[in-house]
Amino acid sequence: VNTSAGGGLTVGVVGGTGYAGGELCRLLLGHPAVSSVLPTSRGEETVERVHPNLLGSGLSFLPAPVLAERAAELDVVLFSTPTGEAMRAVEHYLDHGVRVVDLSADFRFADAATYRRVHGPQHACPHLLAEAVYGVTELNRKQLSQARLVANPGCYAITAILALAPLLTLSGTGDRVSVHAVNGTTGAGTTPKRALMHAEVAGSMLAYSLDGHRHGPELEDVLTGLAGRPVEVDLNTAHGDFARGIHLQANVDVPSGTRREDLLELYRQFYGPGADGEYFVRVNDQPRRGGLNTKDYSLYPTVAAVTGTNFCHLGVDLDPARGIAKIVAVTDNLVKGAAGSAIQNMNVMLGLDETTGLRGYAP
Amino acid sequence: VNTSAGGGLTVGVVGGTGYAGGELCRLLLGHPAVSSVLPTSRGEETVERVHPNLLGSGLSFLPAPVLAERAAELDVVLFSTPTGEAMRAVEHYLDHGVRVVDLSADFRFADAATYRRVHGPQHACPHLLAEAVYGVTELNRKQLSQARLVANPGCYAITAILALAPLLTLSGTGDRVSVHAVNGTTGAGTTPKRALMHAEVAGSMLAYSLDGHRHGPELEDVLTGLAGRPVEVDLNTAHGDFARGIHLQANVDVPSGTRREDLLELYRQFYGPGADGEYFVRVNDQPRRGGLNTKDYSLYPTVAAVTGTNFCHLGVDLDPARGIAKIVAVTDNLVKGAAGSAIQNMNVMLGLDETTGLRGYAP
Amino acid sequence: VNTSAGGGLTVGVVGGTGYAGGELCRLLLGHPAVSSVLPTSRGEETVERVHPNLLGSGLSFLPAPVLAERAAELDVVLFSTPTGEAMRAVEHYLDHGVRVVDLSADFRFADAATYRRVHGPQHACPHLLAEAVYGVTELNRKQLSQARLVANPGCYAITAILALAPLLTLSGTGDRVSVHAVNGTTGAGTTPKRALMHAEVAGSMLAYSLDGHRHGPELEDVLTGLAGRPVEVDLNTAHGDFARGIHLQANVDVPSGTRREDLLELYRQFYGPGADGEYFVRVNDQPRRGGLNTKDYSLYPTVAAVTGTNFCHLGVDLDPARGIAKIVAVTDNLVKGAAGSAIQNMNVMLGLDETTGLRGYAP
Amino acid sequence: VNTSAGGGLTVGVVGGTGYAGGELCRLLLGHPAVSSVLPTSRGEETVERVHPNLLGSGLSFLPAPVLAERAAELDVVLFSTPTGEAMRAVEHYLDHGVRVVDLSADFRFADAATYRRVHGPQHACPHLLAEAVYGVTELNRKQLSQARLVANPGCYAITAILALAPLLTLSGTGDRVSVHAVNGTTGAGTTPKRALMHAEVAGSMLAYSLDGHRHGPELEDVLTGLAGRPVEVDLNTAHGDFARGIHLQANVDVPSGTRREDLLELYRQFYGPGADGEYFVRVNDQPRRGGLNTKDYSLYPTVAAVTGTNFCHLGVDLDPARGIAKIVAVTDNLVKGAAGSAIQNMNVMLGLDETTGLRGYAP
Repeated sequence: VNTSAGGGLTVGVVGGTGYAGGELCRLLLGHPAVSSVLPTSRGEETVERVHPNLLGSGLSFLPAPVLAERAAELDVVLFSTPTGEAMRAVEHYLDHGVRVVDLSADFRFADAATYRRVHGPQHACPHLLAEAVYGVTELNRKQLSQARLVANPGCYAITAILALAPLLTLSGTGDRVSVHAVNGTTGAGTTPKRALMHAEVAGSMLAYSLDGHRHGPELEDVLTGLAGRPVEVDLNTAHGDFARGIHLQANVDVPSGTRREDLLELYRQFYGPGADGEYFVRVNDQPRRGGLNTKDYSLYPTVAAVTGTNFCHLGVDLDPARGIAKIVAVTDNLVKGAAGSAIQNMNVMLGLDETTGLRGYAP
Repeated sequence: VNTSAGGGLTVGVVGGTGYAGGELCRLLLGHPAVSSVLPTSRGEETVERVHPNLLGSGLSFLPAPVLAERAAELDVVLFSTPTGEAMRAVEHYLDHGVRVVDLSADFRFADAATYRRVHGPQHACPHLLAEAVYGVTELNRKQLSQARLVANPGCYAITAILALAPLLTLSGTGDRVSVHAVNGTTGAGTTPKRALMHAEVAGSMLAYSLDGHRHGPELEDVLTGLAGRPVEVDLNTAHGDFARGIHLQANVDVPSGTRREDLLELYRQFYGPGADGEYFVRVNDQPRRGGLNTKDYSLYPTVAAVTGTNFCHLGVDLDPARGIAKIVAVTDNLVKGAAGSAIQNMNVMLGLDETTGLRGYAP
Repeated sequence: VNTSAGGGLTVGVVGGTGYAGGELCRLLLGHPAVSSVLPTSRGEETVERVHPNLLGSGLSFLPAPVLAERAAELDVVLFSTPTGEAMRAVEHYLDHGVRVVDLSADFRFADAATYRRVHGPQHACPHLLAEAVYGVTELNRKQLSQARLVANPGCYAITAILALAPLLTLSGTGDRVSVHAVNGTTGAGTTPKRALMHAEVAGSMLAYSLDGHRHGPELEDVLTGLAGRPVEVDLNTAHGDFARGIHLQANVDVPSGTRREDLLELYRQFYGPGADGEYFVRVNDQPRRGGLNTKDYSLYPTVAAVTGTNFCHLGVDLDPARGIAKIVAVTDNLVKGAAGSAIQNMNVMLGLDETTGLRGYAP
Repeated sequence: VNTSAGGGLTVGVVGGTGYAGGELCRLLLGHPAVSSVLPTSRGEETVERVHPNLLGSGLSFLPAPVLAERAAELDVVLFSTPTGEAMRAVEHYLDHGVRVVDLSADFRFADAATYRRVHGPQHACPHLLAEAVYGVTELNRKQLSQARLVANPGCYAITAILALAPLLTLSGTGDRVSVHAVNGTTGAGTTPKRALMHAEVAGSMLAYSLDGHRHGPELEDVLTGLAGRPVEVDLNTAHGDFARGIHLQANVDVPSGTRREDLLELYRQFYGPGADGEYFVRVNDQPRRGGLNTKDYSLYPTVAAVTGTNFCHLGVDLDPARGIAKIVAVTDNLVKGAAGSAIQNMNVMLGLDETTGLRGYAP
């Protein structure tokens, strides 16, 4: 850490105008160990106009090249840029001893060939791919504590991984995971398009990329690693009529005779109890009221319960007649799915308490 | 048809205060062959207070027993009552020569044992089960034209059936159909509950009945019949942040080498072209722009495009890497999923043009 | 009417890609006297991609110049173009005997000076301003029946006019009308802007043009004419988290001692009873339950009750302690506020029943 | 403060199951000086089922009588009960030296006669009315620091007061303030009612209490005090299609010749600059782009920018042609409008930094 005498951390945010960039700014402003936040922008807009929630915060944008010149002042730099940009820029910061978390997809694959197959262009910085640590904190805490460069996971990927990690330790589960996720419209970015206008989405839903979402291979990679055998992911994505949050359901075949209570116990053991276990992963283990096939709306987590927070809430259920485990996971796509995870990883990299600046419950 | 000289049809609506009952009233008010609509209610509220969209329509509620006494005046009676009520009441109307469409689940199974297994109580009128015709008009048009008693399908069921009927004619498809459906909150009925208050659902989603939805067996029955082999249905349901409409996705394994164009052609052939084919089932057969894995939001239908109408729009796609067909179907759960289908079936029963009173496009 | 032998009407829609243009297409497709709808577009998109609700309708766009060449085939042309376009194009159609309804602001002021003051540029066709009839059908039915050119009112204007016309006949009301209107986001047009993206508006509201909305002078003109004395309009506008509909409240000082029942009687007399009075203007005259200051949510109309329809619902109330009449009016901004009114006016111009193609209730 | 050796504060929340009660719990859980939160409930539900955002927090409900018995352990008790309950219960806590903040309307009027006129029943504890301090922290900081009993303001009242306090210091403004406020549906409480079901409010708006809202007299009292002359408040309320937040517009006549810049300067002076002025009240003082009557959506604050926070954002504008100042104020009705203000007041009563536990920006 470059920061010295009395001061807190200085953190750069490359790409400060998008939704994830705005969340990085918001969370860093409330982070007790951070004294200076430096977001970049390509345009002329003020922070107030781009992120009206930050009215009066005193933040202002600087051009990315200016931030790069000031690399020596930084402790950490966070990239919330479109895919293809961070891979051209991170090395400069690493060379100055700055810790880097990349929220884009640039460093999520271990090899350059996969990157090219999934994203198209040649990777600009292949020699750093092996060094980058994949940033699901709950699973990679130790490597993250020694990392210089973190590849922050995609929002669908991290939500699905937290939903499935316990289940994949169970023997006899199916080889295919069926994932259906509904994301808020912030997940589609800030570029104005008619299909994403409020008038088009209000009271509706918008499926997309059913022919194969780019997070699919990322997810298959990680889940295959966790399971120790090939896992196929059928990933299905849509935008719902809400701005934030991912409501994700993962279905997996389980051995016949599995009971809901067995699954709940597995998840309870894996993540530990409430705030004393994995702080940010909470399992809803309320008992079912009224028996099978009665509507008990309290069993499944809802997006609203995690909006604005770094939590992932998990609901665990089972269709016993067909032998299918059904895990519902909810996160805020911009927090646990992006900026919150990035700061959680930053905390781990810097040896801070992992939950610093991130403990709040959802309004 | 009882109606004679100069008059139009007289139609009773048993259960006029719920959402489906309100839609029956709305659609019957605009039906050119109907001259009198008689909805029932158990309470004292005026139609204006219960269905504010019908302000000034002149409709008023009568008690169900009064309607029963006036059976001889009726041409048709439509039941939009909770499960368990129609089975005690339809025989009286049939005895008076009144055509009956039951929108509840009372007559959807051919045998009383299945009814008891799925719904709990003993069936009150088992001798009529065999006679009742299952009301997916597009598939059962001929039997419907001769029916006295129609079992209108569940909203999830009809949407999934229209989505899957063509695909199940294809040889080599998988034995399991994975159905994920997001329904508007009108699908949860009018009984006030905290979980369904606006303050709880706004900006959120609400999964329910993942342990086995009651429409699952109904759907397995019908799809097994269509496919000519056992079909297992993994049915997953949620309420989204919209009042009306079902956004349903059905995934089925298809033989390797299947192309999107093959599937599109299958659906085009099955349902015919636009308004000249099956009027109410329309296949979105726009070509993909930009190749695989590019976001083309125009390929999949949206709930907003069918809200308030009797249409089912279908989007057809494929994950070629994993060999999974992906069909998106949208309907209005209260129209094609309930009142609209009921009136479509009524039209067929009475020998009217099937689309009478139902042709309008969505606002 | 140009149309002859056996055929229905041929109607052009200049500007078929916007929200009002889409609604014109939808309503004309369901209009029993119209056999051909010819919408124009500047781009290459298909109707299906621009208006997914019209999937399979068979409509296709043609370029505006092609429509102009075919003027002789048309009975009516409807302009749903940005302000400043119709004034350059209508004369050509009038010269061919085509009836014209302009949904833009080009012909709403009687004099060119006001047009210039409010909208900026010089009027391109000032000699037609005096001839154009302002299209609030309920108030100008007779002139409309003889019109060649109709200036369709703005969506805020027509809603406020229908809300206030009865009250302004009352003597002793205040000189200022305070109008607060919340409009759906379709009211902001189809041009993509970040402020109007779903991610920005969901769960929020967006005030705009509080320094003076352009419909203010239009409204002052008309209300001054109706009242026979100067009326000042304090017009306040916002977009709400819904795609369609205007929820408008108009407050006016009334003489002390005025009672809610007096106001209700005034409105009942002015508009007549339900479907037998002014068909499209319906007064909610339910009695209050529970006395003053109790929440009776049924007294005021809601946007949802008129969405997709040509209705204006009115709620009439009073703050007796402060002597302020409070009128709530709801319309669909794209129907009664645009396309529906335009067709209602078209019907009157052509001698058809005014409600043809427009009678439906809201889903 | 009862709390001693090493411990933090112990805070009771009477009425922990409602929306404000849930927010008190959430904010107190994150308050660094609070070590124990004791919410009460009349029912049997767990905290997890009632407030799913608090999953895993470890909070549990106790019955109100049990809390009363433990009064000696408490430092502060916060009442989030329906009107009429706190006035029967606060004295017991005061007698035990516990500081009390009442979020209900029981102690907002200085005299019992006004309470009876507005709310109906006789006041149960009139001798404490004069002692209770009205809790707009920004205006009453000094008295609050010495208070035992605080009457927390209504959500509409505090939002309107912060919007208008600067303007009422200006000479020559009108005697009537016109307030139009749209509130989230959490503002209507948790009691299930059909009119407040998601299916009824989605895509709509719901006006209510236009005959005279109960916060009207509260507001007239306070504004009259601030202005030093009688102020009449025309208060108009509705629920919008969002769960949280108040979007409030206040219009007041101002002397002719007043400019937007004058008003902005007045507000800037009154509240100070951003985080260095009144921390929770922020004035949007962006310059207008594009001149009068152009849509600059960035000038007015939006509900989304303050959701979940204790901020009030203010937008300041003017209709120069008609001489009307237009102030837009947004708050979260459950935070600055209820639980956040209550904790801000608690902080002041206890001599803590007023912003403790409340500084966060909106997601």
